[in-house]
Formats: sequence, structure tokens, C-alpha cells
Amino acid sequence: MADINRRWLIRRRPVGLPSESDFELVTEPVPELPDGALLVHNHYCSLDPAIRGWLKDAPSYMPPIALDDAIRVVSIGRVAASRQDDFKVGDWVFGVMAIEDYSIVRPDGFLRIIDPSRVTSITRYLSVLGPVGVTAYCGLLEVACPRAGDTVLVSAAAGASGSIVGQIAKIKGCRTIGIAGGQVKCRRLVERYRFDVAIDYKDKTLEEVSESIRAVAPDGVDIVFEHVGGIVLDAALMNLKLHARVALSGLISEYNSTSGPVGARNLWQLIVKRASIRGLYTGDFLDRFGQAQEELAGWLQQGLLVVDEQVEIGIENAIPVFLRLFSGAHDGKLILQLR
Amino acid sequence: MADINRRWLIRRRPVGLPSESDFELVTEPVPELPDGALLVHNHYCSLDPAIRGWLKDAPSYMPPIALDDAIRVVSIGRVAASRQDDFKVGDWVFGVMAIEDYSIVRPDGFLRIIDPSRVTSITRYLSVLGPVGVTAYCGLLEVACPRAGDTVLVSAAAGASGSIVGQIAKIKGCRTIGIAGGQVKCRRLVERYRFDVAIDYKDKTLEEVSESIRAVAPDGVDIVFEHVGGIVLDAALMNLKLHARVALSGLISEYNSTSGPVGARNLWQLIVKRASIRGLYTGDFLDRFGQAQEELAGWLQQGLLVVDEQVEIGIENAIPVFLRLFSGAHDGKLILQLR
Repeated sequence: MADINRRWLIRRRPVGLPSESDFELVTEPVPELPDGALLVHNHYCSLDPAIRGWLKDAPSYMPPIALDDAIRVVSIGRVAASRQDDFKVGDWVFGVMAIEDYSIVRPDGFLRIIDPSRVTSITRYLSVLGPVGVTAYCGLLEVACPRAGDTVLVSAAAGASGSIVGQIAKIKGCRTIGIAGGQVKCRRLVERYRFDVAIDYKDKTLEEVSESIRAVAPDGVDIVFEHVGGIVLDAALMNLKLHARVALSGLISEYNSTSGPVGARNLWQLIVKRASIRGLYTGDFLDRFGQAQEELAGWLQQGLLVVDEQVEIGIENAIPVFLRLFSGAHDGKLILQLR
Repeated sequence: MADINRRWLIRRRPVGLPSESDFELVTEPVPELPDGALLVHNHYCSLDPAIRGWLKDAPSYMPPIALDDAIRVVSIGRVAASRQDDFKVGDWVFGVMAIEDYSIVRPDGFLRIIDPSRVTSITRYLSVLGPVGVTAYCGLLEVACPRAGDTVLVSAAAGASGSIVGQIAKIKGCRTIGIAGGQVKCRRLVERYRFDVAIDYKDKTLEEVSESIRAVAPDGVDIVFEHVGGIVLDAALMNLKLHARVALSGLISEYNSTSGPVGARNLWQLIVKRASIRGLYTGDFLDRFGQAQEELAGWLQQGLLVVDEQVEIGIENAIPVFLRLFSGAHDGKLILQLR
């Protein structure tokens, strides 16, 4: 066991797009292990847009990351020391930890032992078999409730979640429309993730995005799986079918806003279409992880599901890699390998 | 049967708050009755915020009122001539008609015969036993699904819908918080409509309204029944309990906006609280009218439900009376008695 612990601490709350100077990479001794806790040697960290929310001093489903604490992330690693009977040294685990070599954790709803023999890469537990995949699965199937033949609109459709949502919807017999930024991503939507249609929203106005959706779904869409917000969500709202369901997984377009949230300007369309918007959060699906992972793993094995991961290496690169989430300069699930 | 038909026609689409010059009161002959239709002599027109939406050239649950057509309203009147076996001359009917002495209508989901002997005033079919009351009833009980002990927040709580929602929630054992503009209305909320708490939003900022809600519901609210939008909705969104439901009945604060809709800026709180917003529309509850009216009428008779109607007289006054909806200068259900 190494005796140093590299950790990325938050030194001040970012305003707008975070910058490296909002954080500091420090080196500390590996902490003492308190009773009932585990010491986890982190190998891979999941870089997710949600982290941007935890960096704010705002009421959320988790408390904000305190100043001078390490940047909270979901990660996978191996148990380096254990004062818990259910976890043994060497076990691979998945849980809410931090961008640091070693994390002290206690069993909670998230922490669980994972089986590397089940997957071609352990990183699958941060992508399709992790919170991203399970939220896509449960959010689509249990919240949005697609029926075969439904039209499903997915924003950020080339992203870690969107690409999985689209493929699950396709497996379930839906027609899928993906929205992404740029022609390269749009090609991938159709060629790799089996979307029926791709819409490039880049450099388009709200009216143009709305018109693009209408052109390919003149009768409207049954389901919107939303990750973006802003004009993308507002355009989707203008194209709902009666009783459409919007599963709200993220609003990445406003996470770095300095002028306050935008939300859904075209909310009035919910009345027009008696439609609904419902927020999703992985924590609500903890008891469904096992079943969801089983079905997702089956689809993977059968080749029905393609999963892309972009693994970047080196804890020292954490901040610029994290920022790619907001420029879209990444493909699939963004993962940081710590060393 | 009189031989003239006074009608309010829309001459141009209002920009911002409508003005009398957007409309014209004309006198026309009573029209010939086509086959399969009824001629209804309108007595009372329901003046509702929804009419403002129909005056726009925007996609809604009903087509926009065409230029030079009469202003569409829900009204009650008596059958003056009938070419339909199910409707006899003299029957009182309720339906979607217009601000005019005589309307030609055909049976649709809305048109129905009403029984004046069942109520102390036939106008109850435009308030508690009409679309307003039935939407309050079905929207609260079937969409928001309150359980005894739930905290229910109602905006525009002194209004035609809000006052009924609050009282039904109280009957169902909920704690009720009403938001209204001004101390007079707030007193009425508590003294007349049995709200547990009243919040005056007038001259308050978003943060102040939010703080006022938090002060009386520190654990958040289970249900929001929303009529207003703007800062009132945004403040409510900051005070949701886990899995809260927002029943969206209206967004009156933005109906006259010239800068576009505002919607729900704090939509991100739906993710934080895994909450939902769902739009309501009377047309979805047509098959529930009978049952809802029966229970509402029972509560009226038992004195559990207080209903206020403000009946203004004279078709010539239609426009200024309609505009009171947007200044809040009315009490309870606003009704126009045509002569």
C-alpha cells in the first residue's frame, strides 16, 4: 500500500465554467481507518455533469462538497483495508468516493462489491452497468414507460446516458430521434447507436430546432429523455404528443450559467398536451441496480447494446478532463483512470 | 325569440394586455339553424384566463379563435331551437360557446343539459360544478393524489379554482397553504376558504416568497396546485418535498407577456426532489364530470364548500370585466350575465 494520497480539493466555489485554479491537487498521508469503515484504493473515477451541481452551494439531493474537501465522484477501486465484515481486502467496489487515491467510506445505499469477471472491462461499472446505465434503464422503462411504436426523443444523445437510452428504446421497439451537437456526433447516433433520426442542434435557434423535430415527427413525440435544457428542451416541449412524458435527467446547458437557471420556458405546453416532466436521480433506483445490470449485461453480450467509454489517464489531468463534459469534446462515458 | 344577436368579435390579436380596441361588439341577425345543431340563447358566460390563450395564434388544445370570430367562452343558456332529438327547446345547457346572445352549437364532449333544480343558482355550473370545479376536483384528487396529512400549496388561492382546490384538500385532511396577492385576499383564504396559512406574494421577490413558504413548511410541500407561474412557481419549486407533485393548471402571470414565456426557471429542483409537473386540462376529465359534480354538490349542501361568484351584468361590459382576471380585481369565479 502506497503511503501517500493525492487528492483534488475544492478551494473556492467556481463561478461559471470551473477553472483549475478553483481546485488544488494536494498530497496527504493515507488516513487512519476508523471503525466500521473501508479504505478504498480508487482506480477509476466517473466524471459526470452532476459534479458541477455538487460544487455549488445550493440545495440538492446531496449536500454541496464542502470547501477544502476532495471532489466527490462515483468511482471504482479495490478495498485496501477493511473494518467491515462484508468487505474484504482486494474486493472491487463501486461507490460515492472522491478524486483521490484513497477514500474512506462506510457502507451506504451506493457502496457495493462488483464482479470483474462479469465484464470485459471493470470500467463498465461506471458506464452501462453504473449509475448512468441504470438511470437510463429505470428512467426510460419505469418513469417514461415506452410502448412499442412510441417516438422517443433523446437530447445529448451521443453522451454516456443518451446513447444508452436510445439503444434501450430501440430494443423496446420505439422510433428514436437523437439530438446532438455537430455532424460527427449525429453520424454516430445513426451508425453506432441505431437512432432512426439524428438532429444537429449546433448553431440553431429554438425555432430551428423545433422545426427540425417537427419535420421528422410531425405528430409529436411520446417521450423526451432530457439531459440538456435550454433551447433543446424548449424545442422538445413544442413537439409533444398528447400525454407525453419528459424524463428529466439533466440540464447541462445551465450548470455553468452565471445568469441563473433557465429551466423550461415553454412549460405552458404541458397544459396544452397534458404532459408531464419528472426528475430522475440514480438514488431512487438503488433497489433496481441488480435487475437492471442483469438485463443490461445480457444486451451487451448479445451485441444489442454498444457502449463507448473514453478513459483518460492521470489524476493530475482531472480538471481539464472534467471540463470536456461541458464542451462536448468527448465520446461516450468520460472516465478518469487515476494512475 | 329576439331577432338580433349581439356578438363580441376579435378584430386583431392582442399584444400584451388585451384592450377593448382589439375587439368589436356587433349586432347581427340570429343565424339560421343548420341540420343537427342547436341554437342556444346564452345567459351567463364564464370569463377564464384560458381565453387569453385562445386569442393567440399559438398551438394549444383548441385552435386559436379566428380573427372576426366571436370570443369563445364556456357559457350556459337555454335551447332556443333544436335540430337534435336529445335537446329540447327550453333545456338549460352548458357548453363551449361565445360571448354572444345566440350560439350555434353541435353536441360534443362539453355540451350537456344541466338541471337548475339541483342548485341555488344556475351559475354554479360555471363555477364549482363547471370546468373550474371539476378540474380542481380531478386535478387535485386524480393527478396530484393527496393523502391525509400532506401539505398542499395553492397559488392564486383566492381565485375561482384555487379556493375550491384548497377546500377540497382540507376536506381530504391536508394542511393547506394559499398564496394570494394582498392582505384582503389573504384574510379571505384563512377565514372563508379554511386555508391553514396564507402567504401574500405582493411586492415580494422570488427569494422572499420562497422564504415565506419555507417559514411555514420547513420540510417542504407534497403538492403544488399552480395557476400563476413566474416567481410564485419558482418559489414553490424551491420548497418541494421528495417526490412532490405539481399540478399545473395555469400560468396566468405570463399570458399577457410580450417578452415570451418564463415557464419554470427552477426546473432543476425536479431532479433534486425527483418531483413532477403535470399539465391539467378540463377536456381530460369529461367522463368524470358526473361523479365530480355529484360529490361537489354534496359538499356544497353539507356546507363543507364555500363558493364565491362575481356576476357582472351586460354584454357591453365584457372586455373590462374580462381584464379583471389579470389585475386580480375580482372575487371568486368571474361570470358575465349577458343582459
